[in-house]
Amino acid sequence: MNTEKQLPDETNEEHRKRMVRLNEIKDRQLAEATQEKGLIIVHTGAGKGKSTAAFGMAIRSLGQGMRVAIVQFIKGAIPTGEAAFVEKIAAAGMPIEMHTMGEGFTWKTQDRERDIATAMTGWAKAVELMRNPAIDMVILDELNIATKYDYISPSIVVQELLAKRPMLHVVLTGRNASDEVIEIADLVSEMKVIKHPYGHGIQPQRGVEF
Amino acid sequence: MNTEKQLPDETNEEHRKRMVRLNEIKDRQLAEATQEKGLIIVHTGAGKGKSTAAFGMAIRSLGQGMRVAIVQFIKGAIPTGEAAFVEKIAAAGMPIEMHTMGEGFTWKTQDRERDIATAMTGWAKAVELMRNPAIDMVILDELNIATKYDYISPSIVVQELLAKRPMLHVVLTGRNASDEVIEIADLVSEMKVIKHPYGHGIQPQRGVEF
Repeated sequence: MNTEKQLPDETNEEHRKRMVRLNEIKDRQLAEATQEKGLIIVHTGAGKGKSTAAFGMAIRSLGQGMRVAIVQFIKGAIPTGEAAFVEKIAAAGMPIEMHTMGEGFTWKTQDRERDIATAMTGWAKAVELMRNPAIDMVILDELNIATKYDYISPSIVVQELLAKRPMLHVVLTGRNASDEVIEIADLVSEMKVIKHPYGHGIQPQRGVEF
Repeated sequence: MNTEKQLPDETNEEHRKRMVRLNEIKDRQLAEATQEKGLIIVHTGAGKGKSTAAFGMAIRSLGQGMRVAIVQFIKGAIPTGEAAFVEKIAAAGMPIEMHTMGEGFTWKTQDRERDIATAMTGWAKAVELMRNPAIDMVILDELNIATKYDYISPSIVVQELLAKRPMLHVVLTGRNASDEVIEIADLVSEMKVIKHPYGHGIQPQRGVEF
């Protein structure tokens, strides 16, 4: 992808000509890509940005006039900026709904059976939303954590995803995405930590982390 | 991070007790992290989600009552869902502004000198926003591409970031982040491609890609 940079021995005019050729190639690639398809998208890995990028996709979809639904499987005990924001724009009439089912991380609830029941309630809501033909994008936030801890079986998730409407986009976030879900996904990104500031006395920052 | 999973030979009660201990450790770690700080955040790598996660942070910050400004250095020629959305919520009175300076990728403009001029105009706007004490978060979308192509020198960027107000958050996105910027950043995430659907006849999807 660095081919577009001007080369040391290249004049401006040579660079311009090379860019014309590169543009033709890119245009041809794009012309060949004509298939519209609802995607199964997975954001996983230990780095920051998995849920955040899913929320970014939600607003992008809203900007395109699409209808979005979000289920949060783990978070929920603590008020977040994204929840406050979604509430505000939904109240203003934008086609977005958010269902916060989680009661926090498992070391907070300290009750595995309740965690499983909470996760299954969230999953029932997720299924309802995915089967609602009015919805264009469903975000299943931290679902990967619920499958990792065996609160929800990955095979149930895969079965529902395989049966989804062709144009529905489904975004699954959380570290440790199951191999079964990755196998059937169209788009998988891993967020990797290169550097992080916490644990050196710096607290999670408002607006950045929550 | 898998320590919270119930172990095969662990009863529900043993698991509960272990979660109580884990909770104590996490609470202590959080209590020790008391420093509030505006962060320098970098989203880089070849995977999806760099700009999208920055937009997600923008809405999280808005939900927290913070004021946000975005400069787009490369994108701009093509209308996007995020631009439409930001326009809509800004018109509704939310404290967000977006400045789209880019004229598209360099293989579209085919004019290196114009690209440099465009990038420098964007940088002047970025500096103005970072120095505005009313703004809590500035997103410099695709700035890493502008430094990679030598449209803007990384040392100018580093100098301005080092001089920023302590509580200002700055988010820089784009592949090939410069080593100089990574060196001074607080939080760096790399988005990696694990699987992507394009180039197999599937076109970039509305709401997902733009």
